[in-house]
Amino acid sequence: MGFEKREGEVSLPFDPADSDGPRVAFIGRVRSRWQPGDAPRNIASAREAGSEARVELAPGYAPGLQGLEVGQHIVLIYWMDRGRRDLIVQTPRHVDHPRGVFSLRSPVRPNPIAMSTVRVTALDKESGVIGIDAIDCFDGTPVVDIKPWIDTIDMPQD
Amino acid sequence: MGFEKREGEVSLPFDPADSDGPRVAFIGRVRSRWQPGDAPRNIASAREAGSEARVELAPGYAPGLQGLEVGQHIVLIYWMDRGRRDLIVQTPRHVDHPRGVFSLRSPVRPNPIAMSTVRVTALDKESGVIGIDAIDCFDGTPVVDIKPWIDTIDMPQD
Repeated sequence: MGFEKREGEVSLPFDPADSDGPRVAFIGRVRSRWQPGDAPRNIASAREAGSEARVELAPGYAPGLQGLEVGQHIVLIYWMDRGRRDLIVQTPRHVDHPRGVFSLRSPVRPNPIAMSTVRVTALDKESGVIGIDAIDCFDGTPVVDIKPWIDTIDMPQD
Repeated sequence: MGFEKREGEVSLPFDPADSDGPRVAFIGRVRSRWQPGDAPRNIASAREAGSEARVELAPGYAPGLQGLEVGQHIVLIYWMDRGRRDLIVQTPRHVDHPRGVFSLRSPVRPNPIAMSTVRVTALDKESGVIGIDAIDCFDGTPVVDIKPWIDTIDMPQD
């Protein structure tokens, strides 16, 4: 696939991208100031950088914003479509030994779903634009879902 | 599509299931005691019912568990494949007026991605089976991702 492996990394004997599973629909795009090469390491770094971002919904999806409010926290779910999907054991730069992909938040995963809990800073329910306090992904990253953050579902309960 | 609408509900002029987006790979299945008709309303109810559940990974994915530990909290991400995907404004039984899908945790959504933060109660890294404290979805629900829960990413930060 044109990707290199680091020491200890293991790939699947198949590519999840060749799955016959259902298709994801891109419901919009993230607009951020990040480009490949200058993106923050994670959402905490993005928040420290203090740069707001926004989500622009694709045509048709704006009515789905009814009931959302400025100030509310949402889970933004996006699709990190720039990487390979078959690397089941990985050695990220910040860890010292190989780790399974399900113990990492790496964007390289069988389904490159990424998510962050962010705060809604602005809402245009007509045009389908949502201002958010920060995000760590590249400008143009496809969005696949937006959910209200709910403590009983999204927080450890013990 | 053979689904009925309630008062105030609005559907998209297209079906997100017909998207030309990338395909999701099912990395495993949830094994729970719930069947259509007797499922709990949400994960809080499932937890009160006190029934543990498990995730069985599909062949090849077990090495992805390296680095996970019993007692750790994970975000389990699954695909609710039994519903329509085009209902952009909905009137769930527990709310009194129509709401946009992005303000609801309804399983009926453009991409039927659902997620819950659960605790790992057992781990078989050889066979790829993960015990979890509770889940609210039907037995057999496809799993699309597992992530470690991380407070700086998954909690509101203000």
